Amino acid sequence: MEIFFSRDIDGGICRLDQDESGHCIKVLRHRCMDEISIIDGSGTLHRCRIISDSHKGVEAEILESVPDWGGHPYRLHMAVCPTKNNDRYEWFAEKACEMGFDELTPVIGEHSERKVLKTQRVEKILVSASKQSLKAAVPAVNEPVSVKEFIRLHSGENDPETLKLMAYCFEDEKAPRRSIKEVLEGFEGKDIIIMIGPEGDFSRQEAEAALEAGFIPVHLGPSRLRTETAAVTAVSAVYFRYL
Amino acid sequence: MEIFFSRDIDGGICRLDQDESGHCIKVLRHRCMDEISIIDGSGTLHRCRIISDSHKGVEAEILESVPDWGGHPYRLHMAVCPTKNNDRYEWFAEKACEMGFDELTPVIGEHSERKVLKTQRVEKILVSASKQSLKAAVPAVNEPVSVKEFIRLHSGENDPETLKLMAYCFEDEKAPRRSIKEVLEGFEGKDIIIMIGPEGDFSRQEAEAALEAGFIPVHLGPSRLRTETAAVTAVSAVYFRYL
Repeated sequence: MEIFFSRDIDGGICRLDQDESGHCIKVLRHRCMDEISIIDGSGTLHRCRIISDSHKGVEAEILESVPDWGGHPYRLHMAVCPTKNNDRYEWFAEKACEMGFDELTPVIGEHSERKVLKTQRVEKILVSASKQSLKAAVPAVNEPVSVKEFIRLHSGENDPETLKLMAYCFEDEKAPRRSIKEVLEGFEGKDIIIMIGPEGDFSRQEAEAALEAGFIPVHLGPSRLRTETAAVTAVSAVYFRYL
Repeated sequence: MEIFFSRDIDGGICRLDQDESGHCIKVLRHRCMDEISIIDGSGTLHRCRIISDSHKGVEAEILESVPDWGGHPYRLHMAVCPTKNNDRYEWFAEKACEMGFDELTPVIGEHSERKVLKTQRVEKILVSASKQSLKAAVPAVNEPVSVKEFIRLHSGENDPETLKLMAYCFEDEKAPRRSIKEVLEGFEGKDIIIMIGPEGDFSRQEAEAALEAGFIPVHLGPSRLRTETAAVTAVSAVYFRYL
């Protein structure tokens, strides 16, 4: 099934941007009256008929709309520190999207070697992975913020119904870490935030700030995982929790 | 912690090959009497003292040996069809190794586009991922075999105590697929084989041969996952089952 992506949907008409139009008309050689499927990035799949086959701007009328197409029974926000190697971050984003998540915030920790992340490439990868894995909702990508700012934004009062987890490696007597599997199994809601630290781990101060804001310290089992592997493994823990 | 790899261990002496020796002496500038850690690839970590610091062939005497270093409480054999793009296969191997698995067989299905896989690169990646994730056992990599040959080798009589799973996408009324999570939770043993098909899925004949040989058809949840994502997700299902 060929799936296109458009956010330009209005009055029963979907318009594809230049990239998508070129792919639709030049590569796949679609013409007027052909039927195509278009995801809106927010969860709905539109089955459409092409009414204008310009390779610069395809227009298609909506025949049928399918809400919550390829959706999942939880809402997962991943806050993941950028990895030194950008490919690894993009790999995580793609794999997490295939399983199913909803929002990504690149967070910059005190021990982060990489302090910047261009979100545009990740957004493209998420659109592509959503199409590939048959999901009409494309995860949102936020601009990077510091770990402490992220914690502040998600302090107790702001997210009363949300399970907030922070995965770090060090042991802390004051707040022993629990297994992510056990914590997820004991949670009855569906809104989850998981923070994954940089190669150098979270700082003690960041961990303390998170604890105060209601984050639960978790571990992902006995293996030492790279940042991107930890992030994908955490997503799979949530994915299997709701299976 | 610096970790080296050697299979040349005998009479209390570990010898590093030329690559590892160069890294040890030229890059890390170790000299005689320095202490280093060496994994044997079979599960044991040796803490050693360098007694010959040639950059072509380091020799080190064993001070202490730690068996089952970084081990896991299951034995997992992944039989995964090569992906069209080799990088994706190597990503899977690295991530699976970080979580923990024991043996990899590249299997060639009737619908496989890629019919060959050079195992040497994957072996190198597994050595590197084992060191990085602090495991002394490096997963074994077998030469590629056809799916049908793999099934024959692991037919009922040959593996009576092993849980054998086959993940495919199509629905089959004769053998409805169960969730991998549910099947794993009902299994009390520790030997597991999981077969993951190619981009074009297993053929019906392959699935039938697997059923006859005692493989259980499973699904990995509602998401459509790429081959390498399915393989990593299956490893994480096992990893979390034994957590």
